[in-house]
Amino acid sequence: MPKTTAEVRTFFDAHWTVRKYKSFEMPPDHLDTILSATQRAPTDATAQMYSFIRLRDSQLREKFGSLTGNPHFATASLSFLVCADVHRLELFLKSAGHELAAIPTIANHFGIGDAVMAAQNMLVASEMLGYRGCWIGGVLNALDEIVSLTKLPQGVVPFAGLTIGVADEPAVHRPRIARSLIVHEDTYREPSESEINESVALMASITARGNWAETLARYFAKDGTMEKREGSLRAILKKQLKS
Amino acid sequence: MPKTTAEVRTFFDAHWTVRKYKSFEMPPDHLDTILSATQRAPTDATAQMYSFIRLRDSQLREKFGSLTGNPHFATASLSFLVCADVHRLELFLKSAGHELAAIPTIANHFGIGDAVMAAQNMLVASEMLGYRGCWIGGVLNALDEIVSLTKLPQGVVPFAGLTIGVADEPAVHRPRIARSLIVHEDTYREPSESEINESVALMASITARGNWAETLARYFAKDGTMEKREGSLRAILKKQLKS
Repeated sequence: MPKTTAEVRTFFDAHWTVRKYKSFEMPPDHLDTILSATQRAPTDATAQMYSFIRLRDSQLREKFGSLTGNPHFATASLSFLVCADVHRLELFLKSAGHELAAIPTIANHFGIGDAVMAAQNMLVASEMLGYRGCWIGGVLNALDEIVSLTKLPQGVVPFAGLTIGVADEPAVHRPRIARSLIVHEDTYREPSESEINESVALMASITARGNWAETLARYFAKDGTMEKREGSLRAILKKQLKS
Repeated sequence: MPKTTAEVRTFFDAHWTVRKYKSFEMPPDHLDTILSATQRAPTDATAQMYSFIRLRDSQLREKFGSLTGNPHFATASLSFLVCADVHRLELFLKSAGHELAAIPTIANHFGIGDAVMAAQNMLVASEMLGYRGCWIGGVLNALDEIVSLTKLPQGVVPFAGLTIGVADEPAVHRPRIARSLIVHEDTYREPSESEINESVALMASITARGNWAETLARYFAKDGTMEKREGSLRAILKKQLKS
């Protein structure tokens, strides 16, 4: 039965990211439903180029928490490392006497795509059941250690972490930039300076200090955190995908 | 109100990919709800590094259909080019006097991630309303022309296409490989040869000729379609992200 627009809107409007969880052991049928929804995600060329490392060992969970600055790795009901994976694709090809072509750029492109489609299904299914979650880009702060700790073979690249559990913090509705900047018609439309300024103002409430452009700068401008991640991500792609 | 496991399972089990659509003009409140759900998706560092080019011009839609081998670009109720976008991020940074760091690998990583989270929300919201859809990796067959047709500025990279509409073909339930190959515990578990063979057999019904490993080979092995895409994707990343 299709849902009404009001039901769909209410569901997605209620999405918010949680980093503080109650101690809660997820019932097996919830976990089973979430993993089933994960695998129903679309996948490029039917290839399912992704793997999830579920973190269960308490020391490993704490290690992930400290390496990435996200202690909820240790306290969530479920903690995952979400990976692009063409290693298993190689095994499927080998079973019929074929070799994977030299396609590191394609492997990264569709591997991330498949992994994110599946993990976003996982998060949406979890939210349908009343849980909340958090994507964790911070795994890029410690790629070498994380690849080594989880023993990822060549062909497997971490995309991000994902934790899921019962929220122990109040709901917040976080703003988004104007839709007119996101959706273009037929060709890319360059936004005006005032549109840019309006969306920066729209996003102010998401920041601690009230200036969203400065928040973005701490990540993406020169000397920001992403600059430090660029070299290590490039090195991991070289090592894991021969990129 | 949380859903039951049966409701969540039924919803995701009903997912199937559609390439034949009825002629149907989507009501404005459906479109509005779908785009709203799209923007509620999580995003790395709050940056929303994605853009959707909605294809409306009938000639452009047909051109996309023929360039990618997916004529449903012209017949779907909604047709999109889903893009990673750090061009707009640059404009946000500039508004506060900052420059984007030289981070092409990071831009590609989180740009694809943000784009796929948003587009997968779009597809799930559409399916909740009773529509069906199709991700289209075939835009990688004509990247140069597509970037030029849609006038993508530097910083914007096509990830895939996405069409949405009313299905005009029967529902099918497509298989997936064994969950035990997808979900690992604490460390990556190498599958056995028999597990690989079992999953290849599980996937047989998805193929026209009954051998899934051979289907994968036509895409991913030497002389497959992905090999041809590797060079053009690499060239576009160099041009659009200075990668």
